[in-house]
Amino acid sequence: MQINYPATAEQWGVWEISLKGRTEGNPFTDYPVAGVFTSKNETKRTEGFYDGNGIYKVRFMPSFAETYTFTITGDCLEAPVSGSFTVEPAKDENHGPVRVCGDYHFAYADGKPYYPVGTTCYVWTLQPEDVQEETLHELSNGYFNKIRFCVFPKHYDFNFKDPITFPYEGTPCSTEGMTRDNFMGFKPDNPGNHWDFTRFNPVHFQNMEHRIRQLMDMGIEADIIVFHPYDRWGFSEMSAADDERYVRYLIARFAAYRNVWWSMANEYDILKKKTIADWERIASLFCTYDPYCRLRSIHNCLAFYDYTAPWITHCCIQRQDVYKCAELTDEYRVRYHKPVILDEIAYEGDLPHGWGNISGKELVRRFWEATVRGGYAGHGETYLQDDGVIWWSHGGPMHGESQERLRFLHSILEKTPGVGLKHIAMNWDDDAAAAENGAFYYLLYFGLNRPSFREYDFGEEPYVVEVIDTWEMTTNVLGIFRGKVKIPLPGKEYMALRIYRPEPECEKN
Amino acid sequence: MQINYPATAEQWGVWEISLKGRTEGNPFTDYPVAGVFTSKNETKRTEGFYDGNGIYKVRFMPSFAETYTFTITGDCLEAPVSGSFTVEPAKDENHGPVRVCGDYHFAYADGKPYYPVGTTCYVWTLQPEDVQEETLHELSNGYFNKIRFCVFPKHYDFNFKDPITFPYEGTPCSTEGMTRDNFMGFKPDNPGNHWDFTRFNPVHFQNMEHRIRQLMDMGIEADIIVFHPYDRWGFSEMSAADDERYVRYLIARFAAYRNVWWSMANEYDILKKKTIADWERIASLFCTYDPYCRLRSIHNCLAFYDYTAPWITHCCIQRQDVYKCAELTDEYRVRYHKPVILDEIAYEGDLPHGWGNISGKELVRRFWEATVRGGYAGHGETYLQDDGVIWWSHGGPMHGESQERLRFLHSILEKTPGVGLKHIAMNWDDDAAAAENGAFYYLLYFGLNRPSFREYDFGEEPYVVEVIDTWEMTTNVLGIFRGKVKIPLPGKEYMALRIYRPEPECEKN
Repeated sequence: MQINYPATAEQWGVWEISLKGRTEGNPFTDYPVAGVFTSKNETKRTEGFYDGNGIYKVRFMPSFAETYTFTITGDCLEAPVSGSFTVEPAKDENHGPVRVCGDYHFAYADGKPYYPVGTTCYVWTLQPEDVQEETLHELSNGYFNKIRFCVFPKHYDFNFKDPITFPYEGTPCSTEGMTRDNFMGFKPDNPGNHWDFTRFNPVHFQNMEHRIRQLMDMGIEADIIVFHPYDRWGFSEMSAADDERYVRYLIARFAAYRNVWWSMANEYDILKKKTIADWERIASLFCTYDPYCRLRSIHNCLAFYDYTAPWITHCCIQRQDVYKCAELTDEYRVRYHKPVILDEIAYEGDLPHGWGNISGKELVRRFWEATVRGGYAGHGETYLQDDGVIWWSHGGPMHGESQERLRFLHSILEKTPGVGLKHIAMNWDDDAAAAENGAFYYLLYFGLNRPSFREYDFGEEPYVVEVIDTWEMTTNVLGIFRGKVKIPLPGKEYMALRIYRPEPECEKN
Repeated sequence: MQINYPATAEQWGVWEISLKGRTEGNPFTDYPVAGVFTSKNETKRTEGFYDGNGIYKVRFMPSFAETYTFTITGDCLEAPVSGSFTVEPAKDENHGPVRVCGDYHFAYADGKPYYPVGTTCYVWTLQPEDVQEETLHELSNGYFNKIRFCVFPKHYDFNFKDPITFPYEGTPCSTEGMTRDNFMGFKPDNPGNHWDFTRFNPVHFQNMEHRIRQLMDMGIEADIIVFHPYDRWGFSEMSAADDERYVRYLIARFAAYRNVWWSMANEYDILKKKTIADWERIASLFCTYDPYCRLRSIHNCLAFYDYTAPWITHCCIQRQDVYKCAELTDEYRVRYHKPVILDEIAYEGDLPHGWGNISGKELVRRFWEATVRGGYAGHGETYLQDDGVIWWSHGGPMHGESQERLRFLHSILEKTPGVGLKHIAMNWDDDAAAAENGAFYYLLYFGLNRPSFREYDFGEEPYVVEVIDTWEMTTNVLGIFRGKVKIPLPGKEYMALRIYRPEPECEKN
């Protein structure tokens, strides 16, 4: 039998082999398939998966531009399949997977710093095709470099329609008679649900990985939410064996994409049937079966998870204090000694719910407050629409004011020497950050304060002073200063200063 | 010798007698003078004071519409002076002195609730006459019903000029060479100061009490700051004996005005030469010599005073958290079990300093946040002016946007049944207050949240729902509702709801 497989791959790209195999019984469970990949610098074992129509697939992300040999084995095959392929160096826009860098920040595998400016569209891949395309179109504007979304469909206020696909073979409970008043009565154990949790629906996952790949090509990290509580179908209350089958299937399908992150749950603490032991068990599956150790975290509603758990790579926090949220970023850094992403700090919008109706200005302010404390924040948009398509859950067209300002913030972050910022004590009324690497580089943010000028004493060394209007997205280099300086400011909210040592050649000008 | 004195007085008004007396030696210290006033319902002893030009004065505020007899004694007089006068009931606009009412609120002596909406003009009575008149003109607009101000002049950024009068005989240090850069080098122990702390300057106090009386006539409480740290003259570092002489002089002159409150200090914790024992000593002087037990508190910079101290009638708090301030009001209520006034929560303005450059919108938001938590806040305005006259310190014309909205807030507060509001737990995203007296009366504030509607279940009883735009100062009665209601809102910041049981006759309409 002739087996086709790619003879080449790109470093940090996806190499994939498709194999015809046995289909008697339940091919999703009866015939495990796996690959072993070996090059000069690494050997990795990856699990494959059944993709329907008699096809088994094994995926692999090579980390080195080397020649790899591989062997695929599994009872689905008549015989193991071996071969080799050549990996070429990553192309320009491919910086590899994102990793934690230092204690509090992120960088791509090639060393380029990664400053997360993420958004949330919980079930955008489960919407009609045209809505998904609108979402991609908005994402192509480069506002965000991370997006959080779920594998399972969402049952919640403003989310009553069935998804375009379900993850399992079977039929969902009826939505007849469901209204905004009574939807909370539709529970995961609804007797109308009939699912075979041993048989996945490949179409559901094929579309999702298609979208993950498109995100990857746009340089956007896919922060995949594995479980969540907004459920009328029972996916939040499966058995431990069903959970494990599901998690290993996710890993087999998605882990090879370098932009994948794993979020064990959204609002883990309101999944009624899962305990901390369950979450630790689920997390350990990722530690065991994800050969790439993709970034891992878990998102809270009321109670923080213990982010010191060794498997957690970074904090993924929903703010607990309605009034003070991003302002706590540096406290969380100290408490958890990990990168802090405040992935939910209320969304820009006008929903009745308090988590979804702040202004664009307030959301951008919270991002900047997180930034100057050495952390990161997350975006969401929740403007009520006549057609029911709301960015935060469905994607679609955006209606807000914050996204452009967040892209602007990212452009400022990219100027940081080294990797990342840390909060520093300056005056009591400066929200001041310095480069984490100790460079003479400072970002000051005034937020709601509106000074008409500020005075500093720079000492004997020269500094460039740049005034940033974080809302109007303007920067204005005032010049190079030494000693005592009085910096004019417009007496407006949302102003910042970037203060840094000039390059030697700048000073000569 | 014929002695003239008023034959009548108004309840809670000021009765005053002027007596010629001895002037040899130091009449400020050598000849104490005092009065004893007796009616059917009270007997009070009050100290008098030397007012210059050979005149001694004794003042008294009668609390009852009764006939009073009095005797004035003192070594300054050849013989005691006795007599009687008749007190008539308080006139319409005279509600008596403000007292603590219940645990957390205030009311006038006649029972009318008093909802403080105060401002700060630290040294307005020490400015040129025309500025004082401008201040009074602004105050006549009814924005505020309390004003904080100092007896001693202020030395601080934007406050370098000498006052129009000093409180003591003597001469101040020179201001030559003083700039914004070096003013902190001008200390209280400046050797250029030459004061006789045993000889007051009556003109200084005469003007102040003239202004106190004008405030009283406008229904504005005078929250008098006894000591403060912004000093190049030495008034913050006098001896204990000098402090006592000063405090007793203040009481003798001012205490009879029913609108007087005593604030021991502004930012007590940064007066370098005074300890907690000093503050307790000073407070005890007020407890001993103020026969009317005027309201007493003390204002902090960084460290809260222990507001549980028995002499403290209410908390006078400067916020310690830049990001969360009014939002802590209910916590302070629990901690101190006294009325909470957040007298400094950053001022509306554009100063370089973070305490003086928030927007009018943010200041008004903080007032409302304090309100729905059962407390009160304080106003200040700090817009830089070419002529150097800034409301927060000098008074003069106002330039801000908040004052009108605070007058509007006061008009809402006056509708509260009983006396005052308390925070209640409702939905997590409602800042909800109810009438302290248990009436079915609710004030909900959405602050930065911008719901486009909210849903409530009122149960079987009818409620009037009123939508309040706290910034645009509009109220819109939506109607009377029962059961589940969906309340339309404009998706804007700073909205509130007033929800209350209709009067029986309303329901019949």
